[in-house]
Amino acid sequence: MDPFFQMAIEEARQGLAEQGIPIGSVLVVDGEVRGRGHNRRVQKGSAILHAEMDCLESAGRLTPAEYQRSVLYSTLSPCDMCSGTALLYKIPKVIVGENRTFQGPETYLRQRGVELVILDDAECRELMEQFIREHPALWNEDIGEPI
Amino acid sequence: MDPFFQMAIEEARQGLAEQGIPIGSVLVVDGEVRGRGHNRRVQKGSAILHAEMDCLESAGRLTPAEYQRSVLYSTLSPCDMCSGTALLYKIPKVIVGENRTFQGPETYLRQRGVELVILDDAECRELMEQFIREHPALWNEDIGEPI
Repeated sequence: MDPFFQMAIEEARQGLAEQGIPIGSVLVVDGEVRGRGHNRRVQKGSAILHAEMDCLESAGRLTPAEYQRSVLYSTLSPCDMCSGTALLYKIPKVIVGENRTFQGPETYLRQRGVELVILDDAECRELMEQFIREHPALWNEDIGEPI
Repeated sequence: MDPFFQMAIEEARQGLAEQGIPIGSVLVVDGEVRGRGHNRRVQKGSAILHAEMDCLESAGRLTPAEYQRSVLYSTLSPCDMCSGTALLYKIPKVIVGENRTFQGPETYLRQRGVELVILDDAECRELMEQFIREHPALWNEDIGEPI
């Protein structure tokens, strides 16, 4: 398996171990990990730290050129916020664990020129299915859905 | 002048006083200020704390219903990231100081049902024009443009 994707799953599991929402993300530039993170809504009382945002924040301030040579991994299809962030920084490629438990604006991302790869990974899916079953209100809060 | 918009401008000026990028934001729910913030790229070495993100983060975890009754103010047209965040949380109305020095995906926001009000405020515009003139590389970094 792609070791960067494996790292994103490790981040998701780390989030779960912290009683958080099990979504992980990794940012790779020129074949090197520059950022990694996981959803921290619960852990930090955060409205913006989805996994991808936590990952990008952990990378610090990169140059526009670095983002434009990067690949963003996420265990789950990026929501409107995280997709918008990929667009802001012109991240050309996003590799997604699964999009069955939640699907962000994938068509729009592709229209804007982002290459999206959907792995349909069973481990990512099972992590989310169990979490959503056990914490439906928290999950709806995370995606802005009325409870 | 709308006191919430005035508060957003105060946030932008606070950012400038901290040597940061002069963009401010306020979140109002049911006529009450719940969050306020300004761009903190410089201050926190942050890749994600645009003014609107800093503002939403300062509000903490709100319910989906609260966001759906909110108004987001920003002194500048929201970028792809911040527009995506408004979409995630189904914020129905965004009031924008100006969109001449930078314009985010306004057409897309409107297509997705967000009411956008553009004030074309001279003070906001002058703040950004001067900042961009003095710090072009920093500004390009903030909007992901190649330097």
